[in-house]
Amino acid sequence: MLTMKTVETTSELKNALDELDRALGFVPTMGYLHEGHLSLVQKAREENTSVAVSIFANPTQFSTDEDLANYPRDIERDIELLAGEGVDLVWIPTVETMYPEGYQTWIEVDRLSTILEGSFRPTHFRGVATVVAKLFNAVSPDKAYFGQKDAQQAAVIKQMVRDLNFHVEIIVCPTVREPDGVAMSSRNIYLGEGERLAARCLSRGLFLASDAFQGGERKAGELKKIVKDEVENESLARLQYVSCADPITLIELEKEVKECLISMAVFIGKTRLIDNLRLGK
Amino acid sequence: MLTMKTVETTSELKNALDELDRALGFVPTMGYLHEGHLSLVQKAREENTSVAVSIFANPTQFSTDEDLANYPRDIERDIELLAGEGVDLVWIPTVETMYPEGYQTWIEVDRLSTILEGSFRPTHFRGVATVVAKLFNAVSPDKAYFGQKDAQQAAVIKQMVRDLNFHVEIIVCPTVREPDGVAMSSRNIYLGEGERLAARCLSRGLFLASDAFQGGERKAGELKKIVKDEVENESLARLQYVSCADPITLIELEKEVKECLISMAVFIGKTRLIDNLRLGK
Repeated sequence: MLTMKTVETTSELKNALDELDRALGFVPTMGYLHEGHLSLVQKAREENTSVAVSIFANPTQFSTDEDLANYPRDIERDIELLAGEGVDLVWIPTVETMYPEGYQTWIEVDRLSTILEGSFRPTHFRGVATVVAKLFNAVSPDKAYFGQKDAQQAAVIKQMVRDLNFHVEIIVCPTVREPDGVAMSSRNIYLGEGERLAARCLSRGLFLASDAFQGGERKAGELKKIVKDEVENESLARLQYVSCADPITLIELEKEVKECLISMAVFIGKTRLIDNLRLGK
Repeated sequence: MLTMKTVETTSELKNALDELDRALGFVPTMGYLHEGHLSLVQKAREENTSVAVSIFANPTQFSTDEDLANYPRDIERDIELLAGEGVDLVWIPTVETMYPEGYQTWIEVDRLSTILEGSFRPTHFRGVATVVAKLFNAVSPDKAYFGQKDAQQAAVIKQMVRDLNFHVEIIVCPTVREPDGVAMSSRNIYLGEGERLAARCLSRGLFLASDAFQGGERKAGELKKIVKDEVENESLARLQYVSCADPITLIELEKEVKECLISMAVFIGKTRLIDNLRLGK
């Protein structure tokens, strides 16, 4: 295939998929692509004969007081970027295609969806699991690529894939960061100039915790305190949570840790940012 | 393939599926097979190159006060019957295979699961939808066959397939009845001699309603009353509900009906039986 195909409906998608050679790598996105997304696409390109990308700002993973309406979009730029990466197929479904009238089926990953991000965004992972299952069924990929930036999302999806017997391998790729350490996110566009500088406190806290870990610190409480102190030193930032958890089950760890996922959510002004770092592996 | 293969684990299943030619027809069952199941297998045999059957008494669709422990089983007889029907592959997973430790993912088909059967068996269709999604993902059939006897189950599964973008066609086959009209069910084995005779009241009520419909009766209330009276005339029977609903949405109909699904649940002693008839199509 020489040119990238862009489709909207599920029947167009099916026809386009029939023309693609296996193995098929798949990168689901909400659009407004940055280097983080493109690193997933590049990995998919390396590991598969064909690559499909979806662009869909999924309404069911936003709560009514969240930022769906203002979620940044630039489909033309996205398409250009994906063509530049040698993607074969881009699927851009409408909300009506994904959730037609009478839609009523939901996937719940019980325990993993209720903790950390889920405790502040109670219906978020239900929306994520449901739309990802739909995308997997519609696209039938061999491998699907997600970012470590959304560590809990990756854990929820891996659990769903295992539990529901999906035939797809989940590949989690490293978080891509700006030169100053800030994790790439479509939501960084919301930040004013001062806020963008303040946003450095997330990764700064994580890197300090990592340094302490390298230096022998193993107490979960101490590692979290390092992150907390760093955020609290930043006047524009408000820490929502910091966690030190088992990297697979996301169960909160106490006392001495061998390996862990340090994760956090921070408000910078009105913008909610998340970041994480895996230690000890 | 000359001989039927029987597998237990998902990796055995995967290998066996790789050897089957498409199109693949699939009949999920809970075992203790009767003519109703075999009619589904025969239909699958007619319409596909290969046929797979699963046998799994799914614990998650039984509530704790229901009959899972006593649910009738006779795997050897089941295997013999399926071999006789020219089935290619039988999958008999263990409970541990289907629900390993840490299992936590559930599929809810919201509206359709809460009415009729769902109002008396609140977690039943969550268990059904979840296990059927797992079976579909593991087997990847082109067509799957279900009985009209479990009309609401068929409606729930069709809705799930549509909502979650499963690539499988759902075929619903007519209810198979004993010569005296009683719908075939694995649970009929629970009935004592007098109860077995009493169980005729379900189909008798449905057939009387059908006769009335043929004769021009279109009032939902009247059609239900015919069924109700017939069950209430039977001293061993206790009507749990009778419904006259839209055949697709299962929304209860009132006043004049063009077409409908009359469905019912009746206790005969301790045994709960269901039956239904579609009118006007």
